[in-house]
Amino acid sequence: MIHLSLIGIGTGNPKHLTLEAIETIRAQDLILIPNKGAGKDDLAGLRRQICVDVLAGAAEPPQIIEFDLPERDPAIADYQRRVDEWHDAIAEVWDSALNRHLPAGGRAGFLVWGDPSLYDSTMRIADRLLRRRAVQLSVIPGITSIQALTAAHRVPLNTIGAPVQITTGRRLRDCGWPEDCDTLVIMLDGVCAFQDIAQPENVTIHWSAYAGMANEINISGKLADVSARILTTRAALRADHGWIMDIYLLQRTGPPQP
Amino acid sequence: MIHLSLIGIGTGNPKHLTLEAIETIRAQDLILIPNKGAGKDDLAGLRRQICVDVLAGAAEPPQIIEFDLPERDPAIADYQRRVDEWHDAIAEVWDSALNRHLPAGGRAGFLVWGDPSLYDSTMRIADRLLRRRAVQLSVIPGITSIQALTAAHRVPLNTIGAPVQITTGRRLRDCGWPEDCDTLVIMLDGVCAFQDIAQPENVTIHWSAYAGMANEINISGKLADVSARILTTRAALRADHGWIMDIYLLQRTGPPQP
Repeated sequence: MIHLSLIGIGTGNPKHLTLEAIETIRAQDLILIPNKGAGKDDLAGLRRQICVDVLAGAAEPPQIIEFDLPERDPAIADYQRRVDEWHDAIAEVWDSALNRHLPAGGRAGFLVWGDPSLYDSTMRIADRLLRRRAVQLSVIPGITSIQALTAAHRVPLNTIGAPVQITTGRRLRDCGWPEDCDTLVIMLDGVCAFQDIAQPENVTIHWSAYAGMANEINISGKLADVSARILTTRAALRADHGWIMDIYLLQRTGPPQP
Repeated sequence: MIHLSLIGIGTGNPKHLTLEAIETIRAQDLILIPNKGAGKDDLAGLRRQICVDVLAGAAEPPQIIEFDLPERDPAIADYQRRVDEWHDAIAEVWDSALNRHLPAGGRAGFLVWGDPSLYDSTMRIADRLLRRRAVQLSVIPGITSIQALTAAHRVPLNTIGAPVQITTGRRLRDCGWPEDCDTLVIMLDGVCAFQDIAQPENVTIHWSAYAGMANEINISGKLADVSARILTTRAALRADHGWIMDIYLLQRTGPPQP
């Protein structure tokens, strides 16, 4: 029997770890850390550092195993199928890592950026594992990049009694601003969809790169005023680090749009 | 000069406290805890207990002050104005508490359920204070009831690449299911708006009462199958405790609705 814990560790600020996350990391027999390949080394390094910090002085620290994540198969044209098969392949890797390192069963933990529930595939991969073998699953919540964003800018997520939609850059670009919702959180935006929003003078943006990390950068203002600066800053950061993780909050402040 | 920290403390599980929240609580000169009046005593008690736990062994623990929250004025018919004037009144109370207990300035902290950015008025009240006096503001993120909910049910918040709308029970009842968004998180639902959703056989619900607390209750399933059970359970819990705090995730699983 495997007890699998998906442990939300926040977005890079080691002080965003919860007591539950720390306790759970310490209680594992095995910690699995994925290597996402070139460009994401900062992230694997941060995860490794968090383990080192949390496990300092632990009597029986878990074994820490790094494994290479399979790549998505670009030959599969359909996005959903490509992601599904990728998750199957990752579940396969987890399965053989557990067979190799915990042949008699035990406690295995995965450190997940932010929270395991939000735009993260770990829970879907765990589901695949549950269909293959006896696994007891625990989910440990963590601070998300949404909370890192609003804390950095010291702004509420919602206006009073009003809704908030969390969505992706791709959807904002392809489907436009959703109806009846004046507040949006945009995640996973590789296309800088904010630059195509109509009436940017009526929209406030709060943008953060590397939210929660030591190198966090924050820009906010009327979208019409700061859009160009965000584009330039984002491109420069991406070139510097080799990767970028950004998130932003949009608030329509003008009259209702047609 | 006042340094004001709004400290997210999660939703009642003391282990959901982050290291940053603990460090910040310990670093304050003054902690202000609101009494929300009869029925919410459990919450004030939990906050008090969290302070006691966090401050155990602290060399110079902050002074802890409880204050009575003003009531909303039912004579003001307009909802927005009623809330605005209530926030003005609370800012007034904060201001005089700070004058009384920190006349020479210092560090004051407010413990906020969940995260200060999400359906919480603390940041709006802090804004009012900023307009009155020199205040430096910090926001410490905390685990929200949304993450407590998804962790309890071990489910992702979103489906792959798809949006999630966070909204209120009142809006769901009055405005219906938002277009183009199959996943909803419903907070602040005093009206049990889930009972009026069309085609409940095509909707999955994950419902939690007191999410994150020791007395957390979780029910999930097809809305058509569990709606009545949630209504009965909710009524019984509310009668038992004198108050209820619940939240739920809705996922449309059927064919697109008209």
